[in-house]
Amino acid sequence: MRKEATLLRPSQNGDRYELTTPTAMPKAAGFLWNQRMMIQLTCRGFATAQFMQPEPAKYAHAPNIEAKTFMQPEQNYYAHHPGRFVYIKDEESKHLFSAPYEPVRAPAERFVFSVGKSDVAWAVESAGIRVEMTMGLPTQDVAELWTIKVSNVSNRSRRLAVTPYFPIGYMSWMNQSAEWNKELVGIVASSVTPYQKATEYFKNKYLKDKTYFLCETPPDSWEANQTEFEGEGGLHNPSALQEPALSCGDARYETPTAAVQYRIALKPGEQREFRFMFGPAYDENEVRAMRNRYLNKQAFIQTAAEYAAYMERGRGCLRIETPDKDLDNFVNNWLPRQVYYHGDVNRLTTDPQTRNYLQDNMGMNYIKPTVSRQAFLTAVSQQEANGSMPDGILLAEGAELKYINQIPHTDHCVWLPVTLDVYLAETGDYSLLREHVRTSNGDNLTVFERFSRAMDWLIGARDYRGLSFIAQGDWCDPMNMVGYKGRGVSGWLTLATAYALKLWADVCEHENRHDLAKRYRAAADDCNAAVNKHLWDGEWFARGITDDDVVFGVKEDPEGRIWLNPQTFSILSGAAKPEQISRMLPQVDEQLSTPYGVLMFAPPFTKMREDVGRVTQKAIGSAENGAVYNHAGVFYIYSLYKLGDQQDRAYKLLRQLLPGPSEADYRQRGQLPIYVPNYYRGAWKEFPRTAGRSSQLFNTGTVSWMYRCFIEGLCGLRGDEDGLVIRPQLPSSWNAMKVTRTFRDATFHLDIRRADVKDVTVKHGGHTLPEPRVTNIKPGEIYQLTVLVPQ
Amino acid sequence: MRKEATLLRPSQNGDRYELTTPTAMPKAAGFLWNQRMMIQLTCRGFATAQFMQPEPAKYAHAPNIEAKTFMQPEQNYYAHHPGRFVYIKDEESKHLFSAPYEPVRAPAERFVFSVGKSDVAWAVESAGIRVEMTMGLPTQDVAELWTIKVSNVSNRSRRLAVTPYFPIGYMSWMNQSAEWNKELVGIVASSVTPYQKATEYFKNKYLKDKTYFLCETPPDSWEANQTEFEGEGGLHNPSALQEPALSCGDARYETPTAAVQYRIALKPGEQREFRFMFGPAYDENEVRAMRNRYLNKQAFIQTAAEYAAYMERGRGCLRIETPDKDLDNFVNNWLPRQVYYHGDVNRLTTDPQTRNYLQDNMGMNYIKPTVSRQAFLTAVSQQEANGSMPDGILLAEGAELKYINQIPHTDHCVWLPVTLDVYLAETGDYSLLREHVRTSNGDNLTVFERFSRAMDWLIGARDYRGLSFIAQGDWCDPMNMVGYKGRGVSGWLTLATAYALKLWADVCEHENRHDLAKRYRAAADDCNAAVNKHLWDGEWFARGITDDDVVFGVKEDPEGRIWLNPQTFSILSGAAKPEQISRMLPQVDEQLSTPYGVLMFAPPFTKMREDVGRVTQKAIGSAENGAVYNHAGVFYIYSLYKLGDQQDRAYKLLRQLLPGPSEADYRQRGQLPIYVPNYYRGAWKEFPRTAGRSSQLFNTGTVSWMYRCFIEGLCGLRGDEDGLVIRPQLPSSWNAMKVTRTFRDATFHLDIRRADVKDVTVKHGGHTLPEPRVTNIKPGEIYQLTVLVPQ
Repeated sequence: MRKEATLLRPSQNGDRYELTTPTAMPKAAGFLWNQRMMIQLTCRGFATAQFMQPEPAKYAHAPNIEAKTFMQPEQNYYAHHPGRFVYIKDEESKHLFSAPYEPVRAPAERFVFSVGKSDVAWAVESAGIRVEMTMGLPTQDVAELWTIKVSNVSNRSRRLAVTPYFPIGYMSWMNQSAEWNKELVGIVASSVTPYQKATEYFKNKYLKDKTYFLCETPPDSWEANQTEFEGEGGLHNPSALQEPALSCGDARYETPTAAVQYRIALKPGEQREFRFMFGPAYDENEVRAMRNRYLNKQAFIQTAAEYAAYMERGRGCLRIETPDKDLDNFVNNWLPRQVYYHGDVNRLTTDPQTRNYLQDNMGMNYIKPTVSRQAFLTAVSQQEANGSMPDGILLAEGAELKYINQIPHTDHCVWLPVTLDVYLAETGDYSLLREHVRTSNGDNLTVFERFSRAMDWLIGARDYRGLSFIAQGDWCDPMNMVGYKGRGVSGWLTLATAYALKLWADVCEHENRHDLAKRYRAAADDCNAAVNKHLWDGEWFARGITDDDVVFGVKEDPEGRIWLNPQTFSILSGAAKPEQISRMLPQVDEQLSTPYGVLMFAPPFTKMREDVGRVTQKAIGSAENGAVYNHAGVFYIYSLYKLGDQQDRAYKLLRQLLPGPSEADYRQRGQLPIYVPNYYRGAWKEFPRTAGRSSQLFNTGTVSWMYRCFIEGLCGLRGDEDGLVIRPQLPSSWNAMKVTRTFRDATFHLDIRRADVKDVTVKHGGHTLPEPRVTNIKPGEIYQLTVLVPQ
Repeated sequence: MRKEATLLRPSQNGDRYELTTPTAMPKAAGFLWNQRMMIQLTCRGFATAQFMQPEPAKYAHAPNIEAKTFMQPEQNYYAHHPGRFVYIKDEESKHLFSAPYEPVRAPAERFVFSVGKSDVAWAVESAGIRVEMTMGLPTQDVAELWTIKVSNVSNRSRRLAVTPYFPIGYMSWMNQSAEWNKELVGIVASSVTPYQKATEYFKNKYLKDKTYFLCETPPDSWEANQTEFEGEGGLHNPSALQEPALSCGDARYETPTAAVQYRIALKPGEQREFRFMFGPAYDENEVRAMRNRYLNKQAFIQTAAEYAAYMERGRGCLRIETPDKDLDNFVNNWLPRQVYYHGDVNRLTTDPQTRNYLQDNMGMNYIKPTVSRQAFLTAVSQQEANGSMPDGILLAEGAELKYINQIPHTDHCVWLPVTLDVYLAETGDYSLLREHVRTSNGDNLTVFERFSRAMDWLIGARDYRGLSFIAQGDWCDPMNMVGYKGRGVSGWLTLATAYALKLWADVCEHENRHDLAKRYRAAADDCNAAVNKHLWDGEWFARGITDDDVVFGVKEDPEGRIWLNPQTFSILSGAAKPEQISRMLPQVDEQLSTPYGVLMFAPPFTKMREDVGRVTQKAIGSAENGAVYNHAGVFYIYSLYKLGDQQDRAYKLLRQLLPGPSEADYRQRGQLPIYVPNYYRGAWKEFPRTAGRSSQLFNTGTVSWMYRCFIEGLCGLRGDEDGLVIRPQLPSSWNAMKVTRTFRDATFHLDIRRADVKDVTVKHGGHTLPEPRVTNIKPGEIYQLTVLVPQ
């Protein structure tokens, strides 16, 4: 291993992250996506790629049959995991190594894994040979574009066998084969997606069941058969590489692979560049078309430029310059990229959970609000006749609700006004409310009417005490057995309902529906009162009441004693009086805080508690059993900013959400600081060895809220119907920061600093504005503002 | 590699098979089963084990998420596949090897893989250290009992680190952990079967979600964390073995493993024996009970004896001594074992396909006819009100029809009389027909009435031409799209229906129901006539007619031109006149025969033919696209024996069904000659490289029929109501054979030889019987018979 000081290196402008040792935490990975695919690449060369057709599918497979399931957090890699590798063998010395690192795992003299926003690259040097590998994606098509450059950096001539090896894996128990295709200059592997019911045949008929690996220049030999390639030597020393050439074999119902070999001679300083494509296709015609479109140097250059432009369109609305440089880098470069990913491709699923779909699009308001507008129309077009929202929003023809979306959850309506709040603040576009939307039952209602129906459904779905039923769940992958008999209730959901009703009442007010505003405010008050009556435990709010009438999340509970979400939403909903808040916050600090963020609840469950539900079945410290579940954490941060006097607590927690980039932090979390994962392992007291580890899963509603916290909270830049309100909440250790905010097509440069003022004071062109709010904003205009905040 | 002459060695009495090199065909495997589990072990140490609870489950997992699916043929192994290994490291020389062979793959000086009927064993020697590993099973419990003996066969004292390594793998995305349990002296890994619906919780609650690895004697150190064990070294050279001891670590939501280390010193000639247990459990109490019951030397010895006795109860009813010694070994030792496996545990599934259930129990008639009798009662207790049989028979409470059993097939009723034929012949027990069986709809009918209803259903399920509808299939994993619109018909099924009706008519006759006998004979004739009218193609019978009225399996078809099953069943049903048979047989020889058996059809499909169905989606040479599908092959052989003058053709094909034991054959088929697989790869002309390869799947209806062919056909020993008919059909190259047959609790020793006789002549105690038939058989009696057959 190299010395630690060189382990992790952000580039100067923060647009790349680099690793200089193939770390023992092999999850260190970059990810790229386009409209139809996603690929995660580890520093060792392992890869996980999925594309949509319309359900997620793979074109490189594990060597055995993998379960088709949702993307797994923390899954381990192993020798035969899909990956992208190139073996380099010196034909004289017989020295063998592989780039990036797997499968040979030979120590390199130099190793750089470099993750950018629009490519992933390596440079690896061993025994005087340098290998540079770069992967990019097209903006629309499903294909990987690989450049592999081999350079002789020694001072003698070298003869090398260069063998790219892209394993294809166990494609199908029904049908698989692979062979060299001379005309296409590559290996084409074929399969048929297995099915048993005749009706499936027609669904599967046009799936892209082929995988191709194409070479720009013909290799000297090739191998399409995994077992033949590997032989007795094993992947770390394949038998095929001990022969003068690969055996040019095929795979017939055997596991396909793609290995090609170039035997080259390089003088000192000389280099050779190869280009390859890897991806799925329906038939050879499609492979041919892809080859013609992409597989040459000029097309690679142009495609990379197009892709960079595509990424640039997701750069977001905020640039900050603060005393915290790592924060700046993350907020300016990586956070909006992750928000964009969610809003752009909806986690590459055809049936995003309704709450995820709405919150992911909440973030998209800061990037492309027209996309978010359409998302509201799509969502409410699938509203049930009774006003409730389905568990998932179907985005593709033939899509169906899968996995957790088949389990009844009761919170989806809450997210309509909560996310609309951002849309209206960002655009002031109340015309959305007047759009008519027809559902499949024939109802043709305005968006306003649909939201009102959703609120009415929430009001009705409560018990005799006024508490909201929880059914089989009230949030992301929740406890599923608190209320499965139909009686259990959720304290959190009751509070979230109150919060949603109040937000909606404001909108009703704006639309001059004072009758409705009054009605919804009264209902919100009723919710808050019910929670205060039944669930205030003296120092915090309980989580709920089970089917068997057991209140849980209370002092007496040895496990699951305090839950974060009810505290958060009691602040947002107004249920918690200042006196209650002053009791709650220290309890959260004391019982839930860890060096990696706030726990979702504590202590974790060590065994099933029959009356509380499924969380107890999860591993301690996993997403749902006492983890630092970031989505809950960021809600809490948002509520702290709403309080207006908690900026230090809020900033500290926001900062904890970021992985790295310190080496110590990186080593514990095991993830590059290019995204926020859905959770960090909790059980800080019980299992300190693994606490803080990243889930490695970059799908999370956390990021929209995090971006919102930076924009609305830290920078205090929130729109209203006619303007931009300015109320920064700098942590007390900061004296100044600079912010650039784009808003309604205007650009605001804010120079924020502490001064001897009573309240936030904004100066524009030498004039002090009457209130900290810019109105009459002109598209295209650039505003230079000086913002003074109290010391 | 060792020289080929020592590759494959049957023991003298045929009760073991041995391999002396860790062959490059790593599927070379033994299998053991008991009432609740099955395990297949390869010579390299890879293992596939499943147990019932009641659905098949695993306790050692692949390191990634495996699909839960039916057992796959020909699946490849890979470095991280589950296995049972022991690393041996010389602490002075640092020489490292592993037994049996994986994961280090170090060449051994001596290697013996030895597969017996009740244990699997290895002896491996490297650098003066011998490792002997043996695995056995208890008769009832789910657990592996491992003995590992390490001997110093060098002439110097040695210090060794002995490290058994039993990977546990990725158990569950919901919950997994593992740790050392001091009291139990072993590693216990815990998980929870993932579920999402609340109702699943109650189903899963008592699953054996723990995996344990117990040591009889405490090791010096251990490791429960897969990643820690492997480290950068990889499985072929684990980092943990480069340290003075294993790190005694745990797994927390990480992939569990079980590795334990003993550091021992051995003088020359000295040895040390270790015992271990590996298996699943519900909780620690169960682990403790298992440990107490089994984990000591005396219990191991007693358990092995009990297990051997259990296997011995499945030895079957036939012993032969012929000029073909390999055949003798297979028929006397291994074939009945495989028949017993099927009848004993029904392929370890909770919903065997009805045709499989009936045919597997057909074989059980030769071993334990009382089991078969009960199987008929179980099967017809699930008959539908309309007389049809369901696609699978549910054997466990809460079981449900899965996979292919959800697809409507139309042949299940056929197998009732076809398999009853053997029960009656073997037992003469017509009382079964008078048993009353109640179905869930309340009907309480006799077995006789239920069979008649099934026949009536078959008669009715035909089209205007008198041909049987095929729906989505008419046989094992069939074409599923020939008749999915409800119009397509099956030539084979029409013929099989005729055959079944005729067999049932005979039973009706016996039961004095001449009216019914007449009716069913007439219907059989009608079926045969319809096939002759619509499907005789001049040289053979076509396979069917599609929904779109296209006759297929005919001369004009470039692919799928001739199918075996219609020819076979036209012989059995009597549809084929002698003139037709004399045309058909040469066509089968010419178009369907290969060195590895008869193809199911030819030529294989290279692409989907929309009007014929799913076979075309399968890989060429796979089970369903032009393979040597042994179940079809053995039907054909049976029909040849029925003809009475085809003994040479029949013997040649029977012989081809056997794998090995010649080395050349073993190398091509890639399977030890201890069972018959469900298929050998076909596409003999298209893909000769892979033709003949074994599917490696020992679940197959082939074996019951094969045993029947040996008993009824080759030996010609078939019972009737009152006696045993004797009509051997020796191949013309044989002059004699000896047979021992147990039948109705009597034992028959037959000395069969050619003589100058016109017809089969049987002598008993010096007297020539009036016909070749022994009657008045006395239980317990031993009959010495001389049988003369025409020259």
